[in-house]
Amino acid sequence: MDHNLQHSIALLARTPAALNALLRDLPDEWTLRNEGENTWSAFDVVGHLINAERTNWMPRARHVLQYGESRPFESFDREAQKRESQGKSLGQLLDEFARLRSESLDELRAMNLRQGDLDLRGRHPGLGTVTLSELLATWAAHDLNHLHQISRVMGHQYRQAVGPWSKFLGVLHCDGHSAAG
Amino acid sequence: MDHNLQHSIALLARTPAALNALLRDLPDEWTLRNEGENTWSAFDVVGHLINAERTNWMPRARHVLQYGESRPFESFDREAQKRESQGKSLGQLLDEFARLRSESLDELRAMNLRQGDLDLRGRHPGLGTVTLSELLATWAAHDLNHLHQISRVMGHQYRQAVGPWSKFLGVLHCDGHSAAG
Repeated sequence: MDHNLQHSIALLARTPAALNALLRDLPDEWTLRNEGENTWSAFDVVGHLINAERTNWMPRARHVLQYGESRPFESFDREAQKRESQGKSLGQLLDEFARLRSESLDELRAMNLRQGDLDLRGRHPGLGTVTLSELLATWAAHDLNHLHQISRVMGHQYRQAVGPWSKFLGVLHCDGHSAAG
Repeated sequence: MDHNLQHSIALLARTPAALNALLRDLPDEWTLRNEGENTWSAFDVVGHLINAERTNWMPRARHVLQYGESRPFESFDREAQKRESQGKSLGQLLDEFARLRSESLDELRAMNLRQGDLDLRGRHPGLGTVTLSELLATWAAHDLNHLHQISRVMGHQYRQAVGPWSKFLGVLHCDGHSAAG
């Protein structure tokens, strides 16, 4: 389907509650383990979503409206959560993500974007010209990307425990398909 | 990690609420669309989880305790939800899944399984000898498998809308890795 801003908002609004329902108070064996060296745990992913909320989506949307293609977006630090999540519990991160997402969507709704606005262009430091529509659709797809990742990272913890059923469980054979998880 | 029954129960108990938070009242464009012919929508997946709850997990656990390896499990019908979900809303399916899962876990807890019980063996019609531990670990991993699938199927709907960001979104390049989704 084409991008539909109301559909994106509907999904974006649900992600914090979905992650909260899945992850809060789950044993650390599910949430703190990763897939091996230089990979992320569910805890790391929630920290990444917080960082993206602070520095990526709405800041870039504002950037498009303010500068168009004349200045590229700031680069996004995909490893910032290693510093910023330190000393926090997963429950704290889930609360923080929910609060930041709610604030982001309040601001997005208040922008009252029209179809013509969605065609506005910005400049990504690596990808070149992108539209505001693509940025906002990517925000929604990025939530799904990391839900996909969390289910995979957690599934990985049971790759031995399932015995011969492994071959019926595609999630255990997924490698993420991308450096971005 | 090895299979830990309490960890499996912790995850199994959370899946209905996670799916409810993600999917309830989401626009049909997210929940009723699939990835093409002979693929499943999020709606179809919830129907499948209901069917597995009724006919797969706890029935097979009881089967192991009753028959051991002497009789194979009944085959599981992976397409039953096509009939059984007809005429139901996604909200009804989410309610039904939550109720059935709660009943399943009540029964599982009441079995009061000990470590020795988890080593009991059953016979899968296609896979041969399996243990009760593997069956119960697979139940948890199966939830993750279908959360992985739902995030992928929903992401698929925005594969064009994200424009050049597609290459950073692994979920858009996942094919499920298995006939079982």
